[in-house]
Amino acid sequence: MLAELHQNVIVTGAGSGLGAALTAQLASQGYHVAALSRSADKLERLVTQYKRVTPFVVDLSCEEEVSQVFSKLATWEAPFTKVFCCAGSGQFGPLASYNQSTIQHMVNDNLLSMMLVAQAAIGLMRNHNKDTNGALIHVMSSAAQVGKANETVYCAMKWGCRGFTEALRVELSGTNIQVVGVYPSGMQTAFWQNNAVAHDQYEQYMHPDEVAKIILLNLQEMDSCYTADIVINKIKR
Amino acid sequence: MLAELHQNVIVTGAGSGLGAALTAQLASQGYHVAALSRSADKLERLVTQYKRVTPFVVDLSCEEEVSQVFSKLATWEAPFTKVFCCAGSGQFGPLASYNQSTIQHMVNDNLLSMMLVAQAAIGLMRNHNKDTNGALIHVMSSAAQVGKANETVYCAMKWGCRGFTEALRVELSGTNIQVVGVYPSGMQTAFWQNNAVAHDQYEQYMHPDEVAKIILLNLQEMDSCYTADIVINKIKR
Repeated sequence: MLAELHQNVIVTGAGSGLGAALTAQLASQGYHVAALSRSADKLERLVTQYKRVTPFVVDLSCEEEVSQVFSKLATWEAPFTKVFCCAGSGQFGPLASYNQSTIQHMVNDNLLSMMLVAQAAIGLMRNHNKDTNGALIHVMSSAAQVGKANETVYCAMKWGCRGFTEALRVELSGTNIQVVGVYPSGMQTAFWQNNAVAHDQYEQYMHPDEVAKIILLNLQEMDSCYTADIVINKIKR
Repeated sequence: MLAELHQNVIVTGAGSGLGAALTAQLASQGYHVAALSRSADKLERLVTQYKRVTPFVVDLSCEEEVSQVFSKLATWEAPFTKVFCCAGSGQFGPLASYNQSTIQHMVNDNLLSMMLVAQAAIGLMRNHNKDTNGALIHVMSSAAQVGKANETVYCAMKWGCRGFTEALRVELSGTNIQVVGVYPSGMQTAFWQNNAVAHDQYEQYMHPDEVAKIILLNLQEMDSCYTADIVINKIKR
């Protein structure tokens, strides 16, 4: 743990679900966590409970706001070794139920936010880390790997994030920044609880604390290899 | 050919490249083609040469403009049997070279336009076609299937279109509308000629007339099956 005491990490979508679970576990392990969320309220519990969590309220689809947060982070002393992109949102239903504005919201929350954070995080790690390696962890969804009815726009966003992740990995090859893709199935989080489309097997959904644990296990540094993609599925009983 | 004389088709991105090649071949085969493009100039040659081509100047990333065009098409008499979505644009370079506005342009031209056209086209075919089958043909790119350096945002768009296509196919299963995915490599079109990133083997790029021919061959109606995906690669010499 000692080495980790001197590392910073960033978590987006830190206010709830998997982002909150990762933030809590990383803080417990001694990392200093920059916890990004659109809502101050959602970050409050984590900030109260963990002194190593610093909250940032930010709209990640606005390049100015992203740039402001990363300027502040650039003043932190230790290297940034891991950036977890968990932020995202969903809206479901048949294609005819969307309009230009709902599609744009989905683009902002899922695709644009990931791109702007990746840009800023790569800049930060390159300027800030000297000889320390860095990892960008892109949390997507099983909806990035198959097509699903009533999820046309959500699938488009998640497949888009996957293509971005695949291309970025090629673009960063030869650097000391790795890109890790995470593809979890449905979790017991507000995300799925709040969605109108019937997800009737909610109690069989995965627990975000366990998903976070699997992700962190995979980020232990090796000499010759790294986990590039992690697909995490429900146990069906 | 006689049956085809009584069919309408729609081509987006009809002003150049593959869209123009498809428009010309479809008009020659006797289809009435609604040729959609952002630029009236680009459609002029086709309209002069083929009397069965009707031009529509439209920004496909604006739902109002899309809706206006499709209202006009709804007055056409014969069924709409094929809708070719060829519209798209590209901007290339390392991730750091993009800003929020260039990303948004890419989203509008590639992802949002495909979604708005699919919505409108499905509505049109359902209301208009009675017992005639319909096909939505989504032209994407080999960049929807791999990650490429200097194409992070383009890959995100094309993978996003692919996810949308896969999900829409599931959503429309059991209807009489088929969704066909087309994944061509680089073609000898203005798209690649104009791009700054070096594509030094341009003369080995595929000819859009031949790519159009392959696509149309695959759209012949069968009793028990249809071509779902068409991957079209260069011959490397």
